[in-house]
Amino acid sequence: MNHLPEQSADRSVPTSADVARLAGVSRATVSYVLNNTSAVRISEPTRRKVREAAESLGYVPHAAARSLRAGHTSIVLLPTARVPSGAFFGRFFTELHEALRRLDYTVVQYGSLGLGPDEAARAWAELRPVAVVSFGEIALTPHGVNVLKRSGARAVVTLGPECVEGAHSLVMDQRGIGARAVEHLIGRGCRNIGVVQPEEPALAPFSALRLAGARTAADGTGARVEPLALACDEKSAAALAARWRGLGLDAVFAHDDEYAMLLMRALQDEGIRIPEGTAVVGCDDTLIGRLLRPRLSTVHIDLVTGQQLAELVDRAVRAPDGTGEQHDVMETWVVHRESS
Amino acid sequence: MNHLPEQSADRSVPTSADVARLAGVSRATVSYVLNNTSAVRISEPTRRKVREAAESLGYVPHAAARSLRAGHTSIVLLPTARVPSGAFFGRFFTELHEALRRLDYTVVQYGSLGLGPDEAARAWAELRPVAVVSFGEIALTPHGVNVLKRSGARAVVTLGPECVEGAHSLVMDQRGIGARAVEHLIGRGCRNIGVVQPEEPALAPFSALRLAGARTAADGTGARVEPLALACDEKSAAALAARWRGLGLDAVFAHDDEYAMLLMRALQDEGIRIPEGTAVVGCDDTLIGRLLRPRLSTVHIDLVTGQQLAELVDRAVRAPDGTGEQHDVMETWVVHRESS
Repeated sequence: MNHLPEQSADRSVPTSADVARLAGVSRATVSYVLNNTSAVRISEPTRRKVREAAESLGYVPHAAARSLRAGHTSIVLLPTARVPSGAFFGRFFTELHEALRRLDYTVVQYGSLGLGPDEAARAWAELRPVAVVSFGEIALTPHGVNVLKRSGARAVVTLGPECVEGAHSLVMDQRGIGARAVEHLIGRGCRNIGVVQPEEPALAPFSALRLAGARTAADGTGARVEPLALACDEKSAAALAARWRGLGLDAVFAHDDEYAMLLMRALQDEGIRIPEGTAVVGCDDTLIGRLLRPRLSTVHIDLVTGQQLAELVDRAVRAPDGTGEQHDVMETWVVHRESS
Repeated sequence: MNHLPEQSADRSVPTSADVARLAGVSRATVSYVLNNTSAVRISEPTRRKVREAAESLGYVPHAAARSLRAGHTSIVLLPTARVPSGAFFGRFFTELHEALRRLDYTVVQYGSLGLGPDEAARAWAELRPVAVVSFGEIALTPHGVNVLKRSGARAVVTLGPECVEGAHSLVMDQRGIGARAVEHLIGRGCRNIGVVQPEEPALAPFSALRLAGARTAADGTGARVEPLALACDEKSAAALAARWRGLGLDAVFAHDDEYAMLLMRALQDEGIRIPEGTAVVGCDDTLIGRLLRPRLSTVHIDLVTGQQLAELVDRAVRAPDGTGEQHDVMETWVVHRESS
């Protein structure tokens, strides 16, 4: 915890007692009115008096106190500190946020970088969320799921490449993405296929599985698959392009459309023609790929929508006794354009 | 609030009383140990007993209870629901998150879409944040700033195009961006300058001010400025490009590098040469612009870093008596490449 100077006495924060005194009612009445409790009959003039007193004092209720009374919060915790940078995931995330809010949940995004999986689960449990939706930034363990459920979380949902015991696991088949790309390239006659492995640490869990899927797809076909480290900058792309001819590759799966744009430009600057010299496939089917020339072939991902995920969270919260379930939430296929 | 089914009695959430019973100590001792209170001397064996009891019961403290005891939280609230999609702002945001966490704050991102400015300020105040950093998704009013401060927020920081009374206002001069672009284009001999106005509502407060700055820069030079509505898709760009020759423009400031890529492609597809037929300037100085051919001229934004902003928030929280201050936190200049 942070060590803050004590609140100075003269800068007093108004309390519900102040509101009660000003309105000439009990503190319970203040609480009933400001929390919109319909179970208790309170006359409209009294309600108005309380609201006016609160307004004039600048009083707002304390969410922490309310959640202690209720025993739980309506918080859905999205434990991620890193704002996903890809436009594709960004849109999905925004849609999920908005759909949960329409279902009347308080959406709290709360990062836990630097914590281990079980420490993180305890830190999340302290907020007493009614549900947690984890995107795999910290890999939840079955123990972590249990800590969250014991602290009152009614739903723990994980979205990622693997299933987590005890959680609602939405499995995104990253291997399938690599397999689709390589199957497509083999079908186009390619036999020596590079697979970009971005150096950004946040992408490693995805790119490693895409590479494994690529290898499986190449198995027994006579095609070879070669991992290619690449940082998200022009220098790294130019260095890779400069040694391209020595690599003997006739195709590359570039991890996603942005890396494809970066590498395609570097290859073109080296005088390598696309797709004749090297075929290129991206992933995510973004606007960028359609704007490139030649137009980029790409793996299209059909993911559960943010709205659907929000509804799944809500159903899990309302189910009397939620045990884990596994759902496959992603289909993938190649959109063939000019670059392959 | 959400109406949830009552917590079933058999699925009991462990409490600190359960931990105290199992460890054979008082509840106060449990609280001292689990909150790492150093003010109270407790023997190491007792500490161990409490930790083991908590671990075996799956007990974690309730953050709400702790914050009620402390009178405030260490929450820094970043009230934004929309995850910023631009890579530029995304990086800044992630850096701010991480820097605040290193300073030991609990960073909570909490959206309030659909609320008016004063409603939103009350909703934020309910979380009793020690600081609020607003990015202008909801425009704080001086009244909202006051509500937050009355509820105990020690720092209210706004980052946006305008100053807000009572807050630490970090002013990002959006007008200057439009002015830099147009001054540059006039210097390159252009006289009929389009200014892209993206149709995304989230960008409107920025693009309107950039247009105003563009107009001021053109004033008295004989150059004219013309706003051009554009959606972020190829159809909208193609439609604009198709009527380009009728517009009589010799230059365009495309709002940012992504819109520049979109519009440049559409103009090139119409056979319009860049920069000979139309000069193009983007904004943000991203990787995309350097990968385009011709290479994109762009307005570079030199913003306060996430680390610097985090330190400013921390200083404001620790200051005994924080009143509002205004800082200019942005410098801009044109990076001239091949497209203008």
